[in-house]
Amino acid sequence: MIPQLALVPGEPSGIGPELCIRLAQQPRSDCRLLAFADPQTLRDAAAALQLPLQLLPEHALAQQPGDLRLRPVTNAVPSRFGYADARNARAVIDALHGAGQACLDGALDGVVTGPVHKAVINDGGIAYSGTTELLAQQAGVEVVMMLANDIVRVALATTHLPLREVADAITADGLRKVILTTHRALRRDFGLAEPRIAVLGLNPHAGEDGHLGREELDVMIPLLDQLRAEGIALIGPLPADTAFLPAKLAGFDAVLAMYHDQGLPVLKYSGFEQATNITLGLPYPRVAVDHGTALDLAGKGIADPSSLFAATELCARLAAQRKITA
Amino acid sequence: MIPQLALVPGEPSGIGPELCIRLAQQPRSDCRLLAFADPQTLRDAAAALQLPLQLLPEHALAQQPGDLRLRPVTNAVPSRFGYADARNARAVIDALHGAGQACLDGALDGVVTGPVHKAVINDGGIAYSGTTELLAQQAGVEVVMMLANDIVRVALATTHLPLREVADAITADGLRKVILTTHRALRRDFGLAEPRIAVLGLNPHAGEDGHLGREELDVMIPLLDQLRAEGIALIGPLPADTAFLPAKLAGFDAVLAMYHDQGLPVLKYSGFEQATNITLGLPYPRVAVDHGTALDLAGKGIADPSSLFAATELCARLAAQRKITA
Repeated sequence: MIPQLALVPGEPSGIGPELCIRLAQQPRSDCRLLAFADPQTLRDAAAALQLPLQLLPEHALAQQPGDLRLRPVTNAVPSRFGYADARNARAVIDALHGAGQACLDGALDGVVTGPVHKAVINDGGIAYSGTTELLAQQAGVEVVMMLANDIVRVALATTHLPLREVADAITADGLRKVILTTHRALRRDFGLAEPRIAVLGLNPHAGEDGHLGREELDVMIPLLDQLRAEGIALIGPLPADTAFLPAKLAGFDAVLAMYHDQGLPVLKYSGFEQATNITLGLPYPRVAVDHGTALDLAGKGIADPSSLFAATELCARLAAQRKITA
Repeated sequence: MIPQLALVPGEPSGIGPELCIRLAQQPRSDCRLLAFADPQTLRDAAAALQLPLQLLPEHALAQQPGDLRLRPVTNAVPSRFGYADARNARAVIDALHGAGQACLDGALDGVVTGPVHKAVINDGGIAYSGTTELLAQQAGVEVVMMLANDIVRVALATTHLPLREVADAITADGLRKVILTTHRALRRDFGLAEPRIAVLGLNPHAGEDGHLGREELDVMIPLLDQLRAEGIALIGPLPADTAFLPAKLAGFDAVLAMYHDQGLPVLKYSGFEQATNITLGLPYPRVAVDHGTALDLAGKGIADPSSLFAATELCARLAAQRKITA
């Protein structure tokens, strides 16, 4: 059966709504989309782009370009492109919660999300550190953030942490959970029977036998050996600077970086437009765009929809795979 | 006048000697090379590769393929490809010192170096943490390490430091010196009248206004503002993950990364074979290969000489530029 995916545009004054309108123009056979959004915002985006839009009831069939099934999540005040309004923060969060809940209830099979403006949500009086964290909390699970494009998949052992806190955050227990979550997701969602995960060292040159830091010797190598004994194909700890050489990447299904700026520069350099942000470990697949709200571009019809297109295709593929492997 | 460059093969049992033999086959008009090496090692490498080699006195003219001017630095014991011998550590170090001293004395204009095997030098009872450090100490200066290929130049504020020590190593005084050294070298050696340097934040998202670390607010932004007031074109602090996007790189002459694994993965991903390692701040230009000794490949004639070729061309260009701007 074709996967049913929630589509959440994110910040209504940013480029999310118009990217969803562009997405709705495409014929698709890989999934059925249900938008969780404010209807007027979507109509405004379609009008701004001079593209057709028919908002349909939840169980209708989308049959022509511009058809989009909708579960309305109404804004508190009308949104204006380029001008984020904290009074609409609640609607943004409600849409995310609604989409996540529909998946937890089994009514939908995955979630695709556009960009959310963190500061505006916080200004709206809502504690929010990111959609990944919100969905993880709602589902009551620990998750791993993975960024991917056609070149490489990068999972992160730590994400939005000051650099000086990273070394202490790499513990055997924590890293074990991250590796197991990543491994399970690569099997279940990506359909890789024996995924090979390259694990980057925390320190330069992966510590160079202890000369440049001891975390590899004290924490990482014993843990990786233990997980290998449990049957997980792990490579490393590898020096981060050479792990991404194209010839090496061919031998890995994913690279696990220890921290944000170790793993993401190559990912973004090698293909930013098509990059997507995948949450591993949720009870359902969730894929997000890998860009921000771009308030300055909103409503102008010039925002590049590649990342949302890639996120939707990937989420459909992951959801279909999970139906097979479930 | 054509620059006179020292050529130091590095570890005699590695691929350095044969890369120098390959280099000596090329006609060149951009510089004259003087090898600091063991003559028998060079002859062995030429024989292994079945390439011509005529070792010439220091002031002879190299006129045909295989001609190489030599200042002999004799090994203690015969070297064998693939088998590093700590008894030859002294000769490796002597060759580097000799080349550096010839430049300090004004007899030569720059140094090109092959790969050195750090552990073997240390096993030989010689304290050595890297050729960059050795040459800096000999010259009595502080230097900055820069890695470069045709895509990007990356300078490093810290180099071979355990990750947990990085945050404390980023001080206003230290960073000021690094930026000034980088700026001066881009002007004097690279001939850029007003070099634009992109400075990466220490923390993910460049600290996100203090939410992900305070070093940008407390140390970096005030320093960059001060240096801008002194006339230096600085961009940043920038989030590292998006600073390398191709469209952005076009606006920078160099990227200053705060630490090793923040800057080098993209550099190596984007063009490892042609990458070179440049020491900024010495009284002469020095360029090294960006690869190791590859003991397992030595003497087989299969090692890729691209990095040594690129290092030699770049060193010749930097030395010629310095003669103009001096």
